Amino acid sequence: MAVRIEILKEDSRTRARLGKLHTPHGVIETPVFMPVGTQATVKTMTPEELKDLGAGIILSNTYHLFLRPGHELIREAGGLHSFMHWDGAILTDSGGFQVFSLGDLRKITEEGVEFRSHLDGSKKFLSPEIATQVQMALGSDIVMAFDECTPYPATREYAKASLERTTRWLKRCQETLTTTDRQALFGIVQGSMYEDLRKQSAAEITELDLPGYAVGGLSVGEPKELMYEVLDYTVPLLPKDKPRYLMGVGSPDALIEGVMRGIDMFDCVLPTRIARNGTALTRYGKLVVRNAESAHDFSPIDPTCDCYTCKNYSRAYLRHLIKADEILGLRLMTIHNLRFLTNLMAEIRTAIREDRLPEYREKFFYEYGYLK
Amino acid sequence: MAVRIEILKEDSRTRARLGKLHTPHGVIETPVFMPVGTQATVKTMTPEELKDLGAGIILSNTYHLFLRPGHELIREAGGLHSFMHWDGAILTDSGGFQVFSLGDLRKITEEGVEFRSHLDGSKKFLSPEIATQVQMALGSDIVMAFDECTPYPATREYAKASLERTTRWLKRCQETLTTTDRQALFGIVQGSMYEDLRKQSAAEITELDLPGYAVGGLSVGEPKELMYEVLDYTVPLLPKDKPRYLMGVGSPDALIEGVMRGIDMFDCVLPTRIARNGTALTRYGKLVVRNAESAHDFSPIDPTCDCYTCKNYSRAYLRHLIKADEILGLRLMTIHNLRFLTNLMAEIRTAIREDRLPEYREKFFYEYGYLK
Repeated sequence: MAVRIEILKEDSRTRARLGKLHTPHGVIETPVFMPVGTQATVKTMTPEELKDLGAGIILSNTYHLFLRPGHELIREAGGLHSFMHWDGAILTDSGGFQVFSLGDLRKITEEGVEFRSHLDGSKKFLSPEIATQVQMALGSDIVMAFDECTPYPATREYAKASLERTTRWLKRCQETLTTTDRQALFGIVQGSMYEDLRKQSAAEITELDLPGYAVGGLSVGEPKELMYEVLDYTVPLLPKDKPRYLMGVGSPDALIEGVMRGIDMFDCVLPTRIARNGTALTRYGKLVVRNAESAHDFSPIDPTCDCYTCKNYSRAYLRHLIKADEILGLRLMTIHNLRFLTNLMAEIRTAIREDRLPEYREKFFYEYGYLK
Repeated sequence: MAVRIEILKEDSRTRARLGKLHTPHGVIETPVFMPVGTQATVKTMTPEELKDLGAGIILSNTYHLFLRPGHELIREAGGLHSFMHWDGAILTDSGGFQVFSLGDLRKITEEGVEFRSHLDGSKKFLSPEIATQVQMALGSDIVMAFDECTPYPATREYAKASLERTTRWLKRCQETLTTTDRQALFGIVQGSMYEDLRKQSAAEITELDLPGYAVGGLSVGEPKELMYEVLDYTVPLLPKDKPRYLMGVGSPDALIEGVMRGIDMFDCVLPTRIARNGTALTRYGKLVVRNAESAHDFSPIDPTCDCYTCKNYSRAYLRHLIKADEILGLRLMTIHNLRFLTNLMAEIRTAIREDRLPEYREKFFYEYGYLK
């Protein structure tokens, strides 16, 4: 198998696991947060900078690359790693999430989804086969199944029909992927917020004995408590010896809570997106650097942070760059937020190793302000 | 004196000089091209990246910093070097060029220029005293005199009145600058395209025995041949033992021609601006990476270039980033264009050292396509 997880330790008081994800492009310590590089670039960053921040695996988006520059061009370039000069691991999503989100611009059949490109309105088609073939051209280490991320809220009927189609589509993805020596297909558990449907979905997809599994259909607008509840009953349905990926989650609290429920991998655009809007993540909560309070504040975002931004620049300078629409501001904010998350994940791993994850959670939540 | 030039060699067949510019923030080999960092940042770049490219001195803009974030804030930060985390040398312009360009939004008197901010329309005022005081707050190594960059074309009467006011204003700048131990005031020769007026201006300003002199009022729309002609008769009017700065010039041909006419320092936004528009400077002329020809071209911008961009990225990837409005594209293009210019200046210095500047010029012009 192209990708496997080595479990180094299981936490005694939670479902958290410490592990190593072995991929064709390096070994990644888990639990891990994966920065998002939608269009074959993690916005504002070079691959070397990502490495320096401690990132070993990134996510890229099939939908966007399929439309521009096109997967055939990336195949010509020798695959996505070579095209974007990133020799770490890459997980690609399937494009399902994006095409289902297009609303009136798409038409769903059993065969797949016909949609109009958001770039030029041209007619396009993605199916389990095509989404998999696109990801084969991209050459990502982890290939995600073409599924429907069931919207929230969904009726029981809708959720059941949707998860069953997702299972049927998963089998078509599995049949299409012929590069299993270097690419690993992950299946996605759906079933909305219904315990029996999650059970049905997990049973159906784990039967295919895939190299990894994701929990989808969460972080789609439901209350966080509900997400945690779904994780509580869904994660134990997944095999212990396979990596588990919670899609679209990246807030500090949800990362910690997800890890405690047995998740190994996370991704989210939020940390990089809010960075570009002038908001920093810090140990003491979010800091809106754009605000007037930072104007004459010559201290760094976080004096305890070891990132390039905090070591060299003041809040006042960052605010100036943001107000003046200077690209360096976007870069420096992104560096800080990504470093905050790679540090957070490293602290989580250390806490698991040292048997103090619940205590770490409590301290982090208190300092961050979640408990106020 | 805060700034002085050490002339290492004078070319035997041209007016070119090889030198070292000694400043409070380092010694810079001349002739030198200064990247422009208008708003306290060279767009898209970190200071470390600038250093790696070989830049030792940058230019920043008084007008922009005066309006935002304000010079008092930068004074609070400990000056511009500290504010923007750049420990190399800084030259600041005076804001004169910008306020005179505001057209209907400004009113000129002997006292100074009243104008409306392009940011919020608020009424502002710059004078020789204020422009100098602002630059004192910024703490730049080289302070430019508050002058009028005479527009082209200008009548003889206009050009004469303008240069004479520039001289009067220069004296007021000189009287205002009390930090001459760490800041050097450069005067600016005006006089439009009139030889006798250039002579008058040069005579008036060199009498003040300033640490450096600039040639202003060129590269303002006149034919290049005319600019070269003005340099031919103006540069010899400036003292040999002082640095000479040609303002607003940065095209490869004009850099070489300027050096051959005795210029030591240059600045221009063009190389960084066209980079952000998707155009690369190469030894073989401009390359519009944005164009369709680059779509499937997996070679670098210039295989002989030693920059980070050329070593790691293809034209196809750069084009993708540019078309997708990705910031990394702007960064990579800027790195290449700035490296092209620092390399060009290094080659020019080597050619002077090795007594082959005219031959270097001929080869460069031929390869670049200027002679076709």
